[in-house]
Amino acid sequence: MTYVSFKADRAHDFTAIGRLCIDLNANEINRPMEQTMTFTKYVGGSPANIAIGMARLGRHTAFIGKIANDQMGRFILDYLQRTGIETENVVTDRSGAVTGLAFTEIKSPSDCSILMYRDNVADLLLEAGEVSEDLIAQSKLLLISGTALAQSPSREAVFQALQYAKKHGTVIAFDLDYRPYTWTSKQETAVYYNLAAEYCDIILGTREEFDMMEVFEQNPEHSDSVTASKWFDYNAKIVIIKHGKEGSIAYTADNKSHRAKSFPAKVIKTFGAGDSYAAGFLHGIMQGWTLEQCMEFGSAAACIVISSHSCSDAMPTESQVLRYIEDCNNGKITAS
Amino acid sequence: MTYVSFKADRAHDFTAIGRLCIDLNANEINRPMEQTMTFTKYVGGSPANIAIGMARLGRHTAFIGKIANDQMGRFILDYLQRTGIETENVVTDRSGAVTGLAFTEIKSPSDCSILMYRDNVADLLLEAGEVSEDLIAQSKLLLISGTALAQSPSREAVFQALQYAKKHGTVIAFDLDYRPYTWTSKQETAVYYNLAAEYCDIILGTREEFDMMEVFEQNPEHSDSVTASKWFDYNAKIVIIKHGKEGSIAYTADNKSHRAKSFPAKVIKTFGAGDSYAAGFLHGIMQGWTLEQCMEFGSAAACIVISSHSCSDAMPTESQVLRYIEDCNNGKITAS
Amino acid sequence: MTYVSFKADRAHDFTAIGRLCIDLNANEINRPMEQTMTFTKYVGGSPANIAIGMARLGRHTAFIGKIANDQMGRFILDYLQRTGIETENVVTDRSGAVTGLAFTEIKSPSDCSILMYRDNVADLLLEAGEVSEDLIAQSKLLLISGTALAQSPSREAVFQALQYAKKHGTVIAFDLDYRPYTWTSKQETAVYYNLAAEYCDIILGTREEFDMMEVFEQNPEHSDSVTASKWFDYNAKIVIIKHGKEGSIAYTADNKSHRAKSFPAKVIKTFGAGDSYAAGFLHGIMQGWTLEQCMEFGSAAACIVISSHSCSDAMPTESQVLRYIEDCNNGKITAS
Amino acid sequence: MTYVSFKADRAHDFTAIGRLCIDLNANEINRPMEQTMTFTKYVGGSPANIAIGMARLGRHTAFIGKIANDQMGRFILDYLQRTGIETENVVTDRSGAVTGLAFTEIKSPSDCSILMYRDNVADLLLEAGEVSEDLIAQSKLLLISGTALAQSPSREAVFQALQYAKKHGTVIAFDLDYRPYTWTSKQETAVYYNLAAEYCDIILGTREEFDMMEVFEQNPEHSDSVTASKWFDYNAKIVIIKHGKEGSIAYTADNKSHRAKSFPAKVIKTFGAGDSYAAGFLHGIMQGWTLEQCMEFGSAAACIVISSHSCSDAMPTESQVLRYIEDCNNGKITAS
Repeated sequence: MTYVSFKADRAHDFTAIGRLCIDLNANEINRPMEQTMTFTKYVGGSPANIAIGMARLGRHTAFIGKIANDQMGRFILDYLQRTGIETENVVTDRSGAVTGLAFTEIKSPSDCSILMYRDNVADLLLEAGEVSEDLIAQSKLLLISGTALAQSPSREAVFQALQYAKKHGTVIAFDLDYRPYTWTSKQETAVYYNLAAEYCDIILGTREEFDMMEVFEQNPEHSDSVTASKWFDYNAKIVIIKHGKEGSIAYTADNKSHRAKSFPAKVIKTFGAGDSYAAGFLHGIMQGWTLEQCMEFGSAAACIVISSHSCSDAMPTESQVLRYIEDCNNGKITAS
Repeated sequence: MTYVSFKADRAHDFTAIGRLCIDLNANEINRPMEQTMTFTKYVGGSPANIAIGMARLGRHTAFIGKIANDQMGRFILDYLQRTGIETENVVTDRSGAVTGLAFTEIKSPSDCSILMYRDNVADLLLEAGEVSEDLIAQSKLLLISGTALAQSPSREAVFQALQYAKKHGTVIAFDLDYRPYTWTSKQETAVYYNLAAEYCDIILGTREEFDMMEVFEQNPEHSDSVTASKWFDYNAKIVIIKHGKEGSIAYTADNKSHRAKSFPAKVIKTFGAGDSYAAGFLHGIMQGWTLEQCMEFGSAAACIVISSHSCSDAMPTESQVLRYIEDCNNGKITAS
Repeated sequence: MTYVSFKADRAHDFTAIGRLCIDLNANEINRPMEQTMTFTKYVGGSPANIAIGMARLGRHTAFIGKIANDQMGRFILDYLQRTGIETENVVTDRSGAVTGLAFTEIKSPSDCSILMYRDNVADLLLEAGEVSEDLIAQSKLLLISGTALAQSPSREAVFQALQYAKKHGTVIAFDLDYRPYTWTSKQETAVYYNLAAEYCDIILGTREEFDMMEVFEQNPEHSDSVTASKWFDYNAKIVIIKHGKEGSIAYTADNKSHRAKSFPAKVIKTFGAGDSYAAGFLHGIMQGWTLEQCMEFGSAAACIVISSHSCSDAMPTESQVLRYIEDCNNGKITAS
Repeated sequence: MTYVSFKADRAHDFTAIGRLCIDLNANEINRPMEQTMTFTKYVGGSPANIAIGMARLGRHTAFIGKIANDQMGRFILDYLQRTGIETENVVTDRSGAVTGLAFTEIKSPSDCSILMYRDNVADLLLEAGEVSEDLIAQSKLLLISGTALAQSPSREAVFQALQYAKKHGTVIAFDLDYRPYTWTSKQETAVYYNLAAEYCDIILGTREEFDMMEVFEQNPEHSDSVTASKWFDYNAKIVIIKHGKEGSIAYTADNKSHRAKSFPAKVIKTFGAGDSYAAGFLHGIMQGWTLEQCMEFGSAAACIVISSHSCSDAMPTESQVLRYIEDCNNGKITAS
């Protein structure tokens, strides 16, 4: 069954709006960051990673965002372009803002953390007037990400993008991507996440992220079906709730829930799992695959990324994902 | 025809959320404020004035807001209580914020201006978690006012109030009340005004206020019907667009427009006209009167206020308004 | 003995730098402000009051400050000019700042308080580059006031004024005038008060103000002589420490302390006592009177102000002060 | 001749106050940073580098500063301790501030730049009350650095340190280290630099830094001797003005100027030259060497640092510096 249908005849399959930043990944891993001496630079930020993932999977992809007028910003722009992403709506800040940073610490495959630099960052300075209505009108699918809601004026830019998407029938996916760092309070966060989610067709998040959104509501048992059903009263068709190692469940407006099998992986770190899953899943949805196929494809894409050192750089092509699934099925890949 | 229907069996007819402040009205008028030596203190702020107006008209009225922990704040609270307004949800700030001020300057009946103090004011510090769901669930009509959207956390408090009203079937009226002072940009303003207006049943504003909301849209001729019809696609039943001396037009979801006759007045100043009109009009709507009757009643209430020195203090009772209409019809009141 | 000598041949006797604001004095007094309905507007701010006092006493007086570009600012400018004060260095703000306000509450002659509006005020926006070196070079005496040290850029403007005064041999008086409202912490306050005091010839403050300045020091018994002697190691010649009803003591660099007799007064409120005392005292110093005469004259000037409703407006002329002293000596004036 | 003499019998030779941060040095150099993929982490910040330099030269060294409560902060603390620096007065921030960063770009040995992260940094949050009077009383020499004056409360902490040093006869050196990034305006900068310099015995800076300090003054020909002589009227004994490749000149209170010969070096980058020069020079002053010897020793120390990849890590020992001088004199080291 097809839960989401896309407008045909549009120049872009996929457009993402929001955070563009730099990951500085520890080269010496399995130790605290205090003992890491060198770092490697990658493009990062959840919507950037997903856009790179979609481009690798062969989708015509565009980005709406703002970069710092410095070496880091120019590196990001150049990387997106080399990945084949349309960057006409990637604006350069002129106020002296910096590029957001994320230093990763990998103490062990399951004990990873991030040290973020999010003060005065360019990506949160995108303005509503800098969002191209035409680009959204020419896209089949728009992805928004929660971090871009954290501050003005980026917050307004996202709400304006939602208005344009609604007006032009562009399907909207919402990757919750909640990072407490830049928010003032849980209440502020919940209010804007809920406002934005009302517009969205596909919502992806962890159980903890949906809990945060329910701070003003009654869901004492943290029931996934209570959570999902609220959004079907608005515009949602698919709500994916992730439960870490226990896997993800996709809820659909027909009151069904869907699970897919998972794959083994030789895990290096957990970063990037959600972004590669989202890219793989959304690619499948656009292909018209069954929900189970989409989830399986997303899971395999995630396995590839968590088996590698980087996030953006490791985003796989379709043939890489298919081969990974085959290798797992053949027993060539097993858990570490 | 009835355009708006209200839930029965609710403890409160009317609840307003937002700005509570102090007006300091020039005692010596018809001169620039530089030459005014003494000022008289009144409760002010558009939603406060409307709430006082509704209470005077006999409505069970409540208020949701925040006051400074100082003499001005205590004066406001006391005044509301003496007017019979339920103030259980009027919270006292503990952060050292001050009470917003508005010094009025009356150079002539038609040349009036306001000098506002809006830095670090208590009313903009109302938080989403301080809004009583129960109070809104027990109200027939909720009034929001645009100034409360100007800053966080008050902005979030209003959006949360809208969620509660929607959830409980409380009718929502939106008095645009746009004050550029506290906003960062026209774009920011337009984004939040539009987001809020999507939830509202009754929207009242001037042509200029609606123009500000259309900064991202196509309405080059500033057409009232283009403006109104947009909101009927959401939840609006009545959209009132005010054209100053040319009078107001009420647009309804059945594609009709309504005008009402106006009344003469011995004008002292223009302040408070909109608030008394809103109170009169909404009172009529709750009475089940025809739109024309509601508009006429609002106009007469406005005439009474602009013929007096204050806003809040001059809000009339129903019998005062009816007598004013009668006196006009009898020729006892003529323009100054 | 002459403790301070002034350069001759200068165009101005006295120049003050700092706060210019508006007092809104309760018309209905001897009650809490909640019950005050009308207020009268006066020029206020400690250095403004002292400058007005000096001008009334016949001194050629100038002011260095910044006013809001609004009706309140223009009223202040006009009042200073009508009082004969040179205002060429009173700059108008162009950033949208407001005029500081002080609402006075007079519950009883001895129970008075002030409700201040000090957010985004023009006077704290004076910049170092806006201070006229030439004006200070042409003044015999420069008065600085502690409130102007509370925030940048006004803080820098005061330090730059001190540099100019030092360079040109202009005598410096420091009225501590400590208002906690706009300061971040006691430590911040103490650091800048101490830095500024190092440059000053005459320092006037209450015991409590000097205590605040000694937060990093050892003066457990709050000894006046310990306090005063510190400043004689820098540039001070006279340090006046005020003990409220117990009167003031002037310490001098020759290790002497001086007291003067006080006068009866029919007190209405305590506001303005310090400012009128400072004006009277400094006038006496410039006249070459003995310290005891200066203190007596300051006390009598203060009595006149606290027996009246306003501060600035009530600042007396020399003949008024002399007549007051005579009337007291004759028994014509007795305490209320 | 001895220009500066130090108190004997003190536990510490040298205490520095101010910036502690992280340098992220490009591993792939001689290219724009856009093309640099990996970075190596070092302790940085001018006063930190100088303190490390002094410790390497065998001085009993302590530090007064504030670090972030994160992996970067803990790395800094650990590095200082491993270098033998007393860190009892290195305070840990509890407000969520981050560690300042400096990414270096080395396009060529003579074309180097820095990308700084200075928003919400821990080092600028040091408070006056966190400065140990006892530590300064037990130090022979206190070094302050201009960056710590850029914001409150760090600015107040430095002024309080100056008060303690003055009170206890601790010699004060001022490394101007002007970084425009965190300052509001040139005027603000000049005011505080001048206030601080009045207290100092030794002042080191570039011609451009002294020009910035003279924004309110008359030195149209940028004369070094005009610049230096101003400070001899306060407390200065030695003023060093650096002219880049043309070398440095030391001015002394006896109206003499001093130059020293320079050394060849195989330059990799220019960063760190000033810090290693300062450490070498101050070490010589504490040894009682002639000014020329001190300058020569400082120059050789600087040559060692600019011939290496890092700043802090490359700070030499005394025997390394002496060997470098010898090797230059023997012709073993020549310019690249």
